[in-house]
Amino acid sequence: MAPGQRREQLIDLGVRLLATHSLEELSIEVLAVEAGISRGLLYHYFGGKQEYHLAVVERAAERLYEETAPQGRGPALELLAGSLERYVDHVARNYRGYLSLRRGAAGGDDELRSIYEAARAALTDRLFDAAPAERAVIGLEDTPQVRLLVHGWSAFVEEVVVDWVRDPRDVTRTQLLTTLHGSLPGLLRAL
Amino acid sequence: MAPGQRREQLIDLGVRLLATHSLEELSIEVLAVEAGISRGLLYHYFGGKQEYHLAVVERAAERLYEETAPQGRGPALELLAGSLERYVDHVARNYRGYLSLRRGAAGGDDELRSIYEAARAALTDRLFDAAPAERAVIGLEDTPQVRLLVHGWSAFVEEVVVDWVRDPRDVTRTQLLTTLHGSLPGLLRAL
Repeated sequence: MAPGQRREQLIDLGVRLLATHSLEELSIEVLAVEAGISRGLLYHYFGGKQEYHLAVVERAAERLYEETAPQGRGPALELLAGSLERYVDHVARNYRGYLSLRRGAAGGDDELRSIYEAARAALTDRLFDAAPAERAVIGLEDTPQVRLLVHGWSAFVEEVVVDWVRDPRDVTRTQLLTTLHGSLPGLLRAL
Repeated sequence: MAPGQRREQLIDLGVRLLATHSLEELSIEVLAVEAGISRGLLYHYFGGKQEYHLAVVERAAERLYEETAPQGRGPALELLAGSLERYVDHVARNYRGYLSLRRGAAGGDDELRSIYEAARAALTDRLFDAAPAERAVIGLEDTPQVRLLVHGWSAFVEEVVVDWVRDPRDVTRTQLLTTLHGSLPGLLRAL
């Protein structure tokens, strides 16, 4: 296998491990065991643990971005509902890793933060890619005030989903999705 | 001055310094200079830097809680608008310290997190203290789904305010307040 392919494979393995491990738990040792190769070879491919972590996190962010892309065609709100549902599934499937990325980003690791913020900005910026007529239906004008609101809305969605995955209490998945689906139009109408 | 009083005074000084300093910048050295007393005496009062920081942060959280308390009597939405306005002013006045507290809490410092989460929970839990008839006006029933939504809403408010204080771009203070005032009823209506 070519070195580039092998490297890609190791990154994918890291992304899979990140679903059930925090970033701190994703050590070169764990990875060497899982990949069945020596630590030395891992250092050869990535240079060090930090570099490996960043490559994995960047890949994980790309996956999130792809998984939550609007699928098919239809009214903006329906596409958004689909994206939100896949976002919930992504966080539920990758809870430990997602949480540790979020924590690392919030805790002041500049490289993690820039990956995390770019991923989140991409998710929200994508809303403004819809045709103006589509956006007008829910009042999503491209103004600084609406951009600020949408930025806050992404924090709302993340908080609600992470909180629910950690402990759903008596909130059903359907109730969760209802809460999320209506949230952006609800906030926009209130402007 | 009695030792208890002196200790209180040093905590208050820390809270004032926290407005323009991050928690990391709030060293025993800075404090000794500002208070005009020896480092030894500070260690005597607080035991160490970490203990001093926690005392300051706890006091700062209490202040935030007091400043954002509903004032006077009136419809729930009007009281909430007043609280939100004072929250904006608090964050603007204490930006560096507020940000470092938030970062410390998000970054996995358990003691900071528990202070921060208790402060935020208190702010949102307080909404449920209003009379049921008042709450009914905006659809604030006490159900797990609404509690989850309110928790997410507090993340929305914090993100919007911190983002705006850092860089208001072209969003006026009035537009910011409009965004905040309508947000909770907008989210609740969408349920």
